[in-house]
Amino acid sequence: MLKTLNIKTSKRTDMINITNQIIAIVKESGVNSGICVLHVPHTTAAITINESADPDVVYDILKKTTALIPENDNYSHAEGNSDAHIKSSIFGPVLTLIIENSNIVLGTWQNIYFCEFDGPRSRKLYAKII
Amino acid sequence: MLKTLNIKTSKRTDMINITNQIIAIVKESGVNSGICVLHVPHTTAAITINESADPDVVYDILKKTTALIPENDNYSHAEGNSDAHIKSSIFGPVLTLIIENSNIVLGTWQNIYFCEFDGPRSRKLYAKII
Amino acid sequence: MLKTLNIKTSKRTDMINITNQIIAIVKESGVNSGICVLHVPHTTAAITINESADPDVVYDILKKTTALIPENDNYSHAEGNSDAHIKSSIFGPVLTLIIENSNIVLGTWQNIYFCEFDGPRSRKLYAKII
Repeated sequence: MLKTLNIKTSKRTDMINITNQIIAIVKESGVNSGICVLHVPHTTAAITINESADPDVVYDILKKTTALIPENDNYSHAEGNSDAHIKSSIFGPVLTLIIENSNIVLGTWQNIYFCEFDGPRSRKLYAKII
Repeated sequence: MLKTLNIKTSKRTDMINITNQIIAIVKESGVNSGICVLHVPHTTAAITINESADPDVVYDILKKTTALIPENDNYSHAEGNSDAHIKSSIFGPVLTLIIENSNIVLGTWQNIYFCEFDGPRSRKLYAKII
Repeated sequence: MLKTLNIKTSKRTDMINITNQIIAIVKESGVNSGICVLHVPHTTAAITINESADPDVVYDILKKTTALIPENDNYSHAEGNSDAHIKSSIFGPVLTLIIENSNIVLGTWQNIYFCEFDGPRSRKLYAKII
């Protein structure tokens, strides 16, 4: 089963908490034990896991990675989004999650984030459950 | 089958070689061919693969990533561990390994490391074999 | 089924587009729906997904990551390739792809790249299809 999630981003860089949507997809699948592979089909976005309790964590992640990889930095790629391509490869566009008892396995503080690095855009996320 | 590994870390940042524990879990499972998904359920730790022959490799990885992402850097998150959250997303909390002939597939120099970025702590690692 | 791909690199740092070889491996396997785990068995190389339409994207990725993690930077590891070990862990040596309709699922602009960080060398890539 391949499911598609549509995500609308509203800023150039953002991390959008999609944990509840992924939990819903896994519940719907009826799979009790297995894995869920999440794939972001874009080269200027990514997927990661981090904390949601304090929104400053996401703020710091985006701010620091942009300080290291700024939007403008004498890049050759003429489209002006090389920073987003670099961040996409560093954070990675694929995340594999364990399913146990019909739910994804996450730590207490862990949430799943869609990372937008060149928005705002209409994005997709594929989820495959095995 | 979901297995839990308990890991005790003794420093703020460290990379702990857990290759033998993962090999043991795979052998115990009796699975001859498949995959093993390792999931670190923490937002200030990660999992990676690198060399163990020369301990200076791990030393350089930790030193250089801390030079790029220092512990104190005008972060907003008040807990004082934003650096650890950033490193967790960059190294990643999930690693998928191939199982063949009842063993994980690794290159000659490859070892599996639990990455502690905000220790010392008592940590967990989940392993799912398919 | 475990397949081995041999890759010959010709520069110290390079990103080699291996999308067509991976598509061919998946077609050959006859698997219609599942996953493909790609594992680079080296500690100074990695695997990632990014754009191929404009070669400047790959150029910028390699240039910027080398600016952040230079070849020489007072590293302790005497072999002189600590930068390559660090990049290997940051980009990651494993990539999991979704298979649907006997093909890997990729976005319009997504291509699969073998990342060489300490070449030129003869490299391997393992592919496991489930």
